[in-house]
Amino acid sequence: MRLKLTIAYDGQPFLGWQSQAGGRTVQDALEAAVSAIEGERVSVQGAGRTDAGVHALGQVAHCEVTPRVPLDRWQRAINNELPPTIRVVRCVKGASDFHARFSATGKIYGFRIWNGTYLPPHELGRSWFVPGRFDAEVLQEAGQLLVGQHDFAGFTANLKGAKRDTVRTVRSIRVRRRGSLISVDFEGSGFLYKMVRLLTGSMVRVAQGRADAGWLKDVLARRASTHFAGNAEGLYLKRVLYGVRK
Amino acid sequence: MRLKLTIAYDGQPFLGWQSQAGGRTVQDALEAAVSAIEGERVSVQGAGRTDAGVHALGQVAHCEVTPRVPLDRWQRAINNELPPTIRVVRCVKGASDFHARFSATGKIYGFRIWNGTYLPPHELGRSWFVPGRFDAEVLQEAGQLLVGQHDFAGFTANLKGAKRDTVRTVRSIRVRRRGSLISVDFEGSGFLYKMVRLLTGSMVRVAQGRADAGWLKDVLARRASTHFAGNAEGLYLKRVLYGVRK
Repeated sequence: MRLKLTIAYDGQPFLGWQSQAGGRTVQDALEAAVSAIEGERVSVQGAGRTDAGVHALGQVAHCEVTPRVPLDRWQRAINNELPPTIRVVRCVKGASDFHARFSATGKIYGFRIWNGTYLPPHELGRSWFVPGRFDAEVLQEAGQLLVGQHDFAGFTANLKGAKRDTVRTVRSIRVRRRGSLISVDFEGSGFLYKMVRLLTGSMVRVAQGRADAGWLKDVLARRASTHFAGNAEGLYLKRVLYGVRK
Repeated sequence: MRLKLTIAYDGQPFLGWQSQAGGRTVQDALEAAVSAIEGERVSVQGAGRTDAGVHALGQVAHCEVTPRVPLDRWQRAINNELPPTIRVVRCVKGASDFHARFSATGKIYGFRIWNGTYLPPHELGRSWFVPGRFDAEVLQEAGQLLVGQHDFAGFTANLKGAKRDTVRTVRSIRVRRRGSLISVDFEGSGFLYKMVRLLTGSMVRVAQGRADAGWLKDVLARRASTHFAGNAEGLYLKRVLYGVRK
């Protein structure tokens, strides 16, 4: 039986999603939990390889389990085995060929930016603190320059020599401001390594008046790497999309 | 110059407000910060002695400083010395006889209760998790039985032998539900030790259907101690009131 798990986690205590020798990753914790229930080693595949410190509200993962434990018991069973910083928020049966990563048709990431004179204690580790001059309307306008199908080679890191396919489609970038909190949602077909953080960091430069729209267009056009990245702790994997839209 | 400080903190890393030999309290951190700026030992008095784990959004404190540092520099100066889990959110000049605790005419505490099948990772340490049956309307009705001037001896702990004055006025109890989150605001002239946690814990028993309104009225009338307390991590000191209302 294939399980489709929707997962939320606080990124702070973890070294990111992807399994590492030293453990302390979300994938390691999930595999340990499912393996403990199954009594044998089970692999768990996730849709997005979130970095250290990055949060998830709607990460999706799949795994193959024996139907010994009924479907409606799995969510609670896995949550009982997990640390409280990771929760399975939904658990359904997936099609036998469902793959969390390869079946995905898109993702929504959210960035939480705090633009005030101080960072409230309860926003620590949950927002990117950007004090000072900041124009959210300019941020929204800057975002629109990046929407569409582009070669985002300028907005990624760690290409490891080989030229990989760096064309992606950003379907929308939406900015909302409520008081000191600025939320930016990115919906796209998929995102390159560190892409959302680099898009956000570069857009914020423009919103701060430290660079203009021409600079942003130039980074995109020249595919020259920018290194202005938003903090991992402000980034949330909000939703993974499955469906007809490619 | 007397400073009136409004302070927010995440209660989790601290052993409460009140100074202790071992440090690790909010008062100790604030006194260390102000003393570092002043170059001599400064005492900081707070309005509410929040317990270990209890949060504050609007704690108020006062201290006496030399006017060497201008008023508009103090907020930033203190925040620079504090750990990021404590922030001065406002700093103004107080009257020379302003006392954070004795000048207060009331306080507003908020309780954050999470009633769902699981506790979202980002609510860890910030809500009291109460799964299962829960009627927020019954909670609101139960609260109204406690509003008014009463002897709240049944809703306190640690009276240390001597009979102290346990009469307090609860001006209002307001319950709101948004999805799984239930917020309860208590406004009163002042609250006894652990009183808000015990009021909330007892009201929740009724909202869960584990006790009825008669039991709650009986605890109040008989002044017999109840030990049903909400978790410290769900409690927030939201505001301290100063003004004509006594």
